[in-house]
Amino acid sequence: MSPMISLFTDFGPGGPYVGQMHAVLAQLAPGMPVIDLFHDVPSFNIRAGAYLLPAYTRGFPPGTVHVCVVDPGVGGERRALIVKADHRWFVGPDNGLFRVLARRARELECHEIRWRTDQLSASFHGRDLFAPVAAQLAHGLVPDSVSASLTLPAPDWPEDLAQVLYIDHFGNAITGVRAEVLKPDVKLRLSGTELSCARTFSDVPAGQGFWYENANGLVEIAVNGANASRELGIAAGSPFEYI
Amino acid sequence: MSPMISLFTDFGPGGPYVGQMHAVLAQLAPGMPVIDLFHDVPSFNIRAGAYLLPAYTRGFPPGTVHVCVVDPGVGGERRALIVKADHRWFVGPDNGLFRVLARRARELECHEIRWRTDQLSASFHGRDLFAPVAAQLAHGLVPDSVSASLTLPAPDWPEDLAQVLYIDHFGNAITGVRAEVLKPDVKLRLSGTELSCARTFSDVPAGQGFWYENANGLVEIAVNGANASRELGIAAGSPFEYI
Amino acid sequence: MSPMISLFTDFGPGGPYVGQMHAVLAQLAPGMPVIDLFHDVPSFNIRAGAYLLPAYTRGFPPGTVHVCVVDPGVGGERRALIVKADHRWFVGPDNGLFRVLARRARELECHEIRWRTDQLSASFHGRDLFAPVAAQLAHGLVPDSVSASLTLPAPDWPEDLAQVLYIDHFGNAITGVRAEVLKPDVKLRLSGTELSCARTFSDVPAGQGFWYENANGLVEIAVNGANASRELGIAAGSPFEYI
Repeated sequence: MSPMISLFTDFGPGGPYVGQMHAVLAQLAPGMPVIDLFHDVPSFNIRAGAYLLPAYTRGFPPGTVHVCVVDPGVGGERRALIVKADHRWFVGPDNGLFRVLARRARELECHEIRWRTDQLSASFHGRDLFAPVAAQLAHGLVPDSVSASLTLPAPDWPEDLAQVLYIDHFGNAITGVRAEVLKPDVKLRLSGTELSCARTFSDVPAGQGFWYENANGLVEIAVNGANASRELGIAAGSPFEYI
Repeated sequence: MSPMISLFTDFGPGGPYVGQMHAVLAQLAPGMPVIDLFHDVPSFNIRAGAYLLPAYTRGFPPGTVHVCVVDPGVGGERRALIVKADHRWFVGPDNGLFRVLARRARELECHEIRWRTDQLSASFHGRDLFAPVAAQLAHGLVPDSVSASLTLPAPDWPEDLAQVLYIDHFGNAITGVRAEVLKPDVKLRLSGTELSCARTFSDVPAGQGFWYENANGLVEIAVNGANASRELGIAAGSPFEYI
Repeated sequence: MSPMISLFTDFGPGGPYVGQMHAVLAQLAPGMPVIDLFHDVPSFNIRAGAYLLPAYTRGFPPGTVHVCVVDPGVGGERRALIVKADHRWFVGPDNGLFRVLARRARELECHEIRWRTDQLSASFHGRDLFAPVAAQLAHGLVPDSVSASLTLPAPDWPEDLAQVLYIDHFGNAITGVRAEVLKPDVKLRLSGTELSCARTFSDVPAGQGFWYENANGLVEIAVNGANASRELGIAAGSPFEYI
């Protein structure tokens, strides 16, 4: 199987940034599939991205190169990394974005990228650094880099994050908790509501809220046939408890 | 001409769902063009999708495989279908989404999909069932399936639906009425306004509302140089009458 | 290097228009990379598009075909053009969209497109005219056309436009001024604030506003770690002065 490149960013669904990364990849890795996996990770929110990343990249084939850009410190001191985790590559900033992924990986390598282009802008390393590095990795080449450790700064992030990270287009609330760590009889309490587990939407009456294991292994909060964010008054950042 | 796959969903312009379907198709149908045709069909609104589908898929070449996912009952009892209509394939849920298309088709075949992957999630059949089935069809293979009839449940849907179905990015209002069923001297009345027919924007003065046959054969309501939804106070769901 | 097609439109990030252009290009230029460069140029705003276009298309390789559609006069009297500027092609309406690009080009050719399909809709020349013409150009063919001059109508547009043109997903404000025309000690005054120049986000304290040369050569206004549009109270159209 030929490799694949995926893009995981906070660039938003519109705007001129994603296309410029595709243009670079079309030139440097012609014919390679480039997947727009996630472009509306909450802006500047490295922690949300860190918990979403392993869930939404799982299931990609070995050899996939994931370009990961939630990078408010772009152009500053933060290092640029290549992380190899369980036979897939991840390219992006050393700012915590790879912290959860790394903790869960069975096999892990980490390299600091030394390769630079002479056209490196100060504010768009996605286009000028991470995309060209990804193209090289997809061709089986490892760009100039040195073995490194992931910087794991102070704040202690939990194994799973009992918080809403992302509201999807339907109003469903994706959380930072892997469903596999909860027993199905656990209830969630958030903003005054208690939610039981169900398998899927149609297993509860219309209008009823519930939590379920979403198709990427995370706990997700939904309401059958309605917008859970609006119905339950929850937003990205809303915390919850297990009861 | 090699075949093409198109995606018609209510997944929204952002989010992680469309990309995961592309990732599956890049693996199972490498090199095949996959077109993001429509991703913001109003959420959960099967009827809106049903009237939009034939208009926005017309003109695709024979052999095209349209993956169609407006599927609030995903994971429940609703069947999964392959519909062949006038030399093109449509893959999706048996929930009414194909009802208008089927009524207008000159040639129609319908199959219930029996093929299943052992990795079928309860909530994302677009990725786990419909995309893999589409890849097989695009390769000329018909997955395990049995001849079936489309379920055509009770509510009587009109031939054409005199309702705004979708507000586009410009604020134009796309309706469920084929322009070919209206004479050009028909006026539309909605929210206190009467609108005459024109050929295109620049045929009416700036700021004036009108209806026209859009580039997909549907009646569309617009205002020259302005946002019709805002100017006329109309939204998805707004009904209108012919006068 | 094989050519590339890019799309620069005001069609919005969702909706059914971009996909239909891709479907045409997949048929007429199979295998050719088609880049979604910019799809949320402010609607109907030809002038904003005109100043964004040269910045966001610079750096594409020679031979690239840029399809450019900000076209409120579609179906009316305005001509359809092929512009060749510095070894790249631009296809779109003769309504001012190419005016800034043309002024800055070192080499310029302009052709009025005579080629027509018999399926030309009145309202979607992006799909029915500009995309097929782009496919021909990408194959090295120049469709039926005659040498022409760009229409440069009355209003005198400045060399650089001291106005916010576009608010990006992060809330950064992209302007119509090339950074190369400003000295780095110039300050911008807008909505009661004075902003100094910095190199990138992390060069100023969190929460502080500044201007910088963005990765496409334009003056951009940002706040480190926050949404500049909200913090500074600016929007598309906001003017500013140099001090």
